[in-house]
Formats: sequence, structure tokens, C-alpha cells
Amino acid sequence: MRNIDEHTITEAVVRSFGRCDNPRLKEILSSLVTHLHDFVRDVKLTEAEWMEGIRFLTATGQKCTDTRQEFILLSDTLGVSMLTVALNHPCPEGVTESTVFGPFYVDDAPTLPQGADIANGAPGEPLQVDVLVTSTSGTPLANADVRVWQADEEGMYDVQRAELGSERRGRAKLRTDAEGRLRFRAVVPTAYPVPTDGPVGHMLVFMIKAPEHETLITHLFIDGDPYLDSDTVFGVRRSLVVNLERGRDGARHLRHTFVLAPSGEPS
Amino acid sequence: MRNIDEHTITEAVVRSFGRCDNPRLKEILSSLVTHLHDFVRDVKLTEAEWMEGIRFLTATGQKCTDTRQEFILLSDTLGVSMLTVALNHPCPEGVTESTVFGPFYVDDAPTLPQGADIANGAPGEPLQVDVLVTSTSGTPLANADVRVWQADEEGMYDVQRAELGSERRGRAKLRTDAEGRLRFRAVVPTAYPVPTDGPVGHMLVFMIKAPEHETLITHLFIDGDPYLDSDTVFGVRRSLVVNLERGRDGARHLRHTFVLAPSGEPS
Repeated sequence: MRNIDEHTITEAVVRSFGRCDNPRLKEILSSLVTHLHDFVRDVKLTEAEWMEGIRFLTATGQKCTDTRQEFILLSDTLGVSMLTVALNHPCPEGVTESTVFGPFYVDDAPTLPQGADIANGAPGEPLQVDVLVTSTSGTPLANADVRVWQADEEGMYDVQRAELGSERRGRAKLRTDAEGRLRFRAVVPTAYPVPTDGPVGHMLVFMIKAPEHETLITHLFIDGDPYLDSDTVFGVRRSLVVNLERGRDGARHLRHTFVLAPSGEPS
Repeated sequence: MRNIDEHTITEAVVRSFGRCDNPRLKEILSSLVTHLHDFVRDVKLTEAEWMEGIRFLTATGQKCTDTRQEFILLSDTLGVSMLTVALNHPCPEGVTESTVFGPFYVDDAPTLPQGADIANGAPGEPLQVDVLVTSTSGTPLANADVRVWQADEEGMYDVQRAELGSERRGRAKLRTDAEGRLRFRAVVPTAYPVPTDGPVGHMLVFMIKAPEHETLITHLFIDGDPYLDSDTVFGVRRSLVVNLERGRDGARHLRHTFVLAPSGEPS
């Protein structure tokens, strides 16, 4: 019979994964348990602290809804999300840098045409967005699938506003034109606060898919934002900080080129 | 402006805890993040795998109810629960060994007198339980608060049976008598299955509190149980495996002495 102590338990748990017939899952679980046990031993976690952790994880799971992903937010603030991005997107020269997906994506954004106003009533100063999507060779990528979501001037995403129900504001599914261009109207986004944990600097989030290219998930950050240096999700990249221009019409304009890596390109 | 990569992110996250004014929380979070990042780097976790993890944690949280604690079950099967027990209860010579709390404790068990039948209709062969609670000196501990909960012969706890609603079976709050004795009736428990993850050998769980003594949380396991060696929560201790006797009346009997450590006794 097994008689396990604090020294032998890790090996016993890893051994219990022996019957798992998915080698990658086994590798992940074995490493997870080894590091998790090292953590518990390092800090000599008490049972009361352990129970606090159980309560915290339970509450986190129970806050999740179709439109709120609290575990992604937790992962973001612990730097785990950005770490997976950094490990998996070594970013070949010239390619737009990736950053975290964030907790506010939903799949039911409206499909809108070129030139549309994605704000749909979201509060904020009007912003004209004009982007170009290309491959690393400079070739424009026509008909790329571009999904955009943004915080409004109060730092809120639509899904955080219970009063909106299933109405979507500040998000859309769009397509680039034959020249790889995409123009749409939005509002100037504002850094939003994460309750009790400081501000998060996500601004205007883009997920861009084009055939034979790596999917790009990234954000644009507005230069001069006071929160850029204290971004709690560790997602700010110098190359993703943009200036807003003031157009002749007095409106704010954002121009940016996104460069996608061809699939399977060695990094 | 920060520009963080997969090598510098861990230090950046740990630095972000600088404003945390609870030194123990800061220590725990810093160690947790360091080990968690090491895990992600070691296995080079992909974003798809990360998303699977997010989904799994979310589902785990959402399965929790007032009577079902899925995160405790997860912690138990990863050996984390037993590790905290082993670290915090070094078990002085002669003291009854502790084991995991498990996911099936609820606070609203009925308070029952000596001799009561705690089964209250739970299916199983009748079991007469006769325990003695003492201090390490051998002194009986009178009026100790003893909470018991058990699986029935189908391996189910009452809280796993939706049809019972808030009815409690196979659990009670009891007190030892002036001689430290406690007798009650129960049913012979059976190892219960954890869905998709093999059996768990928790049998008859005791939480015993007496003034000026360390609270004892432990289980008794029935000798000959086929699952003792594959217990998925790593809680089986040789000293906690008991034999059931057959009484003259033909009924099964369980006799056991629990020894509690005086509070603050050096281990």
C-alpha cells in the first residue's frame, strides 16, 4: 500500500498519469503538478490559505458568463496569457507583434461593411480608422477577416454594460477590400480599470485572419495614455503604440498597417 | 515604457506585486507566478492548450454549488490537498494521522445524540461504530465535537443525490461522552468512483475538535478495499486502514481510537 509523504507525493501523482494515453496531456499534467507542488512546498501553504485559494478560484469560475471571462482576466493579470503569446509568436522581423486576447471577445458581433460605424452608439469622441493589412512581402491581403472590439470613452466594453443586453457596441466583423484596406468609424477608446487591480491598457483589439497566414491578435494603444506603463496585463508593445492624427474635418484619425506572417514561416 | 518578452515577464509580474501591502500574500503570489511561468515555459504551452485550461477551470467553477466543491476535488486529485495536509501536520509520534478534507463536507448536518443512526436511510449494510477520542497522554477527551460524513454502499454521499434535496443522510454532528467515547450507527461505506478518473478511497470521514487540541481531519479506510492502492487523492495512510469485526449479533462493528495532539505541541 502506498504511504505518501510531502516528499514522495509529487512522484506518486505524476505516476498516476501513467494511464493517460495522450502523451502531450501527460507531459503538461506532469509538469503542472511538479511546479504546483514546488510552489506549495516553497511557501509552505497552510490549509487556511489553500481554502482561500479554493474559494477564490470558485468565485472566479462563477463570475464567468457568456460575455464575461474572469479566468482569462486572471490569467492576463498574472502574465500567463502574455507569456503564452510571447512563446508562440516569436515575431519574425517586420511582422506586427501579437498581444493578449483579453477577456472581452464575443463571437456574435455584427458583420458590417466597409465604412461602417462600429460604435453603434458607444460613448466617445468619433474616430476614423484606416488600416492596411499586408503580408511580410508587402502584398496587400484582400478579403481578410478582421474582428475588432474596443473599450468606449468610459473604459467599458459593451459586454460589461448589463443594460445593453445582447446589443453589441464597439465591435464588428469586417473584411479588407481588394487593396487590403479597411476603413471604419469607431470612438476614441480609453484605458479601462480592472476592479481593485489598477488599469488595463487594452484599447482597440484586432483579430485578423487571412488565408495562408498566421492569425494575428493584437491591440493598438494610444500614445500619451497615462496607463501605458502600468498596464496590468503586460501586453503593451512599443510597436503597438499609435498616435491619433487630427483630420482637416477636426475628427481624430488612426492609420495603421498590420503585417501578417505567412503560415509556417520559420521564425 | 515596458517592452516585455518571455524572459523578462516573470520579473515584471512579480514587481507588479510591489504595491501589495500584505507581505504573506505578496510572498505567495510571487512564488505562484514564478512556478506557473516556469511550467508554461517548460512545456511551451500553446494558446489552444491555454484556452483549454481556461475552459476547464471555468467549467470546474461553474459545477460548484452549496453542496458540491469541484475545485477541492481537482486539488485532491492533483495531490495538492494532501500535500498541504502533510506539510502542516507533521504528525507527532502517537497522534492519529490527518488526511484530506475532501469535497463533500457540508455544515448543515443534523446534531444527533449518542447511539443515533446517522445513516437516516442511506443504503448499506448496518455498521456499529465505537470510537474513543484521547489526547497523546491517553487522557480521554470528553465532549469533543465530532463531525462524521460517509459514502453509502453505492459510493455516493448524500449531497451527490439530487433527489434528496436538503435531506441529510450518513452525516452528523456528535459529541463524545464523559469517557471520550462515541457510539453511533452507520452503514458500511464503499469506495466511490470519481467520474473518468478512477476511484477515490474516502470512506468514513471524521473532523474532531476538542479544546486545547489540534483539530483532526481524517478518514478511515476499510481493509480489503480493492481501491486502496489506487486512491486518486493520495490520502490513504496505513494507520488509517481498519478491519471491520463481525459481532455476535451478525452486524459489522468498527472500533477505533483517535489520538489528538495538544495545541502548540512541538512536532
